Amino acid sequence: MENWLDAIRWMPDGLVPVITQDADSNDVLMFAWMNQESLEKTMAGGEAVYWSRSREKLWHKGEESGHIQKVVEIRLDCDEDVILLKVVQTGGIACHTGRRSCFYRKLIDSHWAAIEPVLKNPAEIYHT
Amino acid sequence: MENWLDAIRWMPDGLVPVITQDADSNDVLMFAWMNQESLEKTMAGGEAVYWSRSREKLWHKGEESGHIQKVVEIRLDCDEDVILLKVVQTGGIACHTGRRSCFYRKLIDSHWAAIEPVLKNPAEIYHT
Repeated sequence: MENWLDAIRWMPDGLVPVITQDADSNDVLMFAWMNQESLEKTMAGGEAVYWSRSREKLWHKGEESGHIQKVVEIRLDCDEDVILLKVVQTGGIACHTGRRSCFYRKLIDSHWAAIEPVLKNPAEIYHT
Repeated sequence: MENWLDAIRWMPDGLVPVITQDADSNDVLMFAWMNQESLEKTMAGGEAVYWSRSREKLWHKGEESGHIQKVVEIRLDCDEDVILLKVVQTGGIACHTGRRSCFYRKLIDSHWAAIEPVLKNPAEIYHT
């Protein structure tokens, strides 16, 4: 039987796009990337581990903020090139701006309006 | 005021990733790409128009299948580089396999199991 990791069509740079969705509300929380190692760690540990393209290293989501994502489901799309995670979001905050979801801006009258509240001040989340 | 299209951080190839979600169930239906022209057309016409990377042309979703996506919301993420569409999916089928969603495979015991039913035979959808 084919290894489940080999079924994924990784991009030439070894990454795959990942959509992360709240397991209860089904709201899309964020979009990120994984390499094979991060997906293996996500599967093995049950917590979302991404690949940070900006920092070029593994990113255990919540490692600084405490906003860990407990993985409920891992899904793959019809083209085998996009992963969907369903997670329980610790703290109810996925976005580094302190909002529930990264998709907090809605197009209204040709303007991107921030329509979701900041639940926690980022300075308090990251202690920077 | 900045043009809403200029607020988006397009990739070097002029594309932006797009997550498409069912406006009622919040289920993620598919993942695709847009260039500026496709996003303008989506906004203006109220129906999802993507950029097909394989065919290298605009792709008015449903143009062949009839499975048009009526756009309810357009959202942008915190990094301004991912679009989220909330849509009403005509026919209740977004996937070319005849399923509701493209994310129909779930990782179960290290195996990608197809857990959503085929609602319509693709041969009947595309008349090929």
